[in-house]
Amino acid sequence: MHGFGSVPVFDDILAAERRLAGHAVRTPLLESERLNNEAGLRILIKPEMLQKTGAFKFRGAYNRICMIDPATRKKGVVAYSSGNHAQAVAFAAHQFSVPAVIVMPADAPKLKIEGSRRFGAEIIFYDRNAEDREAIGEAVAKERGMTLVRPYDDTHIIAGQGTIGLEIADDLEARGIRSGSVVAPAGGGGLVAGTALALSHRLPEIRVFSAEPAGFDDHKRSLESGARVANEAGPASSADSLMALIPGVLTFEMNRSLLSGGFSVDETAIHHAMRILFHDFRLIAEAGGATALAAVMAHKDRFQGEPVVAVCSGGNVDAETLLRILQDVT
Amino acid sequence: MHGFGSVPVFDDILAAERRLAGHAVRTPLLESERLNNEAGLRILIKPEMLQKTGAFKFRGAYNRICMIDPATRKKGVVAYSSGNHAQAVAFAAHQFSVPAVIVMPADAPKLKIEGSRRFGAEIIFYDRNAEDREAIGEAVAKERGMTLVRPYDDTHIIAGQGTIGLEIADDLEARGIRSGSVVAPAGGGGLVAGTALALSHRLPEIRVFSAEPAGFDDHKRSLESGARVANEAGPASSADSLMALIPGVLTFEMNRSLLSGGFSVDETAIHHAMRILFHDFRLIAEAGGATALAAVMAHKDRFQGEPVVAVCSGGNVDAETLLRILQDVT
Repeated sequence: MHGFGSVPVFDDILAAERRLAGHAVRTPLLESERLNNEAGLRILIKPEMLQKTGAFKFRGAYNRICMIDPATRKKGVVAYSSGNHAQAVAFAAHQFSVPAVIVMPADAPKLKIEGSRRFGAEIIFYDRNAEDREAIGEAVAKERGMTLVRPYDDTHIIAGQGTIGLEIADDLEARGIRSGSVVAPAGGGGLVAGTALALSHRLPEIRVFSAEPAGFDDHKRSLESGARVANEAGPASSADSLMALIPGVLTFEMNRSLLSGGFSVDETAIHHAMRILFHDFRLIAEAGGATALAAVMAHKDRFQGEPVVAVCSGGNVDAETLLRILQDVT
Repeated sequence: MHGFGSVPVFDDILAAERRLAGHAVRTPLLESERLNNEAGLRILIKPEMLQKTGAFKFRGAYNRICMIDPATRKKGVVAYSSGNHAQAVAFAAHQFSVPAVIVMPADAPKLKIEGSRRFGAEIIFYDRNAEDREAIGEAVAKERGMTLVRPYDDTHIIAGQGTIGLEIADDLEARGIRSGSVVAPAGGGGLVAGTALALSHRLPEIRVFSAEPAGFDDHKRSLESGARVANEAGPASSADSLMALIPGVLTFEMNRSLLSGGFSVDETAIHHAMRILFHDFRLIAEAGGATALAAVMAHKDRFQGEPVVAVCSGGNVDAETLLRILQDVT
């Protein structure tokens, strides 16, 4: 089984917004005149590195855990994740005072492992190349009577991430903007799917695109071919949060009709975007979190004449890694 | 003449809020469970490094320039500043399409000099130890028919900074918080004065404190003695934005009755706070911008049992400087 439930509807996102009020950070849209001048574009940043646990993932995780009936919830939750969903589930479970088990690849960034442990979660490591994390997660859930909180193929996870689309719509309308583009990174595709669903109801003239690192452009290729295609085995990306093998079932069902296309960007473009976020916005982005801005900067011709929002999805990067990237050009 | 106009009243802050709507960034309050656990306190961060030009100063500068009658405004504005007010005035003037002259110390951070030049301002350098920046600014203003936009001793500058207090009050009330403390850094004292004035009307049980680097604790000593006292000449602080010689006339008139006290913190504490903002909030703070959080962490006993807000006033720090500070303990 790849998914939980069915694709969300707009009302699920509105319900998620009510559940998250007072729990998730309501992030602003930010803008830099220097960057706009450099790019010849009006670029707006949605800084989800400011979200609880440093990534948008808290929105979906908290919303999903809210939806478990209290008697079942008490037994705990299980999640598999390379890191940001893990930390979000660990923290959300902690807020409900229920146990959490996290199934993480042994090569997950140390920072994300520590971030998950911090809130009392039990970590089970697996080998990214040899083991099936879903099978491990399902087995633990069954054994212990815990609820599996999937990273993207879940109605209420997608609906939670979709609250980002509602906030973007509010903030664009406050600026008198009703058309343009939104670019969001895609791992399993829940963030971009939820965001696109919200915007399709609130500002239907806005186009929504996915952004991925080169070599992990399964969404882009799936959108082009009309069916879910997987990534080839290849070298890892510095965007560890965007290395999902293939688009989700539910998320792709949504994205194939809601998205206007997908971008893929190389490491150089991603690192350039991390430097922009540092210098022009005073924000720390992890590579995956800078990928949408990288796509905007690498494909400026696609956004001429209209504002574009880059969703910066997370900032969980080891200081050493960030410093190396910043110093590359200093 | 040290000041412009009289001390602001609460209505001036409400008027500033209306002028700034859609121009200034409405920054959120952020919180980290890891930090709260470490500190044994509930700490909320007001991240003004996300403000336009990277510091709270844009609020006052924009509000002040709004208030100049259009015929006079067309002739331009003059400001003296070590950097953050300079960049804010340069950017605000640019938005009104009027010329700006900035009088800056020759040893101002390169980043802040470039940030001021970026928007077309003319820069006049002076020697921090030998020349009087106010006299230079006043002479330029008189010669060219320009309006002097003072960094803190001005009704509408203070009122603009006070919008931070309104936002903090809104965000505390949304969390059901009606008592506790707010700590804000003090250079000339406009930020803490405006913030305290807003809070005294909105949440009168909240105590407001100033924070300064050791050696530049003129507010702390002035509050203790009841009269404005200046700093002794001494070594510079890494908190270049907080090196004003003596509290402002208008700002001290407000602060002496509105503040509950002042803190001073050493360089080690400030750098520790910069690292917290980096690791726990994914935010870049300059030393001055981290000084209020440093004061909270160094004086935890003063805030036991109630929430405390640290106003993080700016993030304009050269990458090399920040990296050096981050690497000091890695």
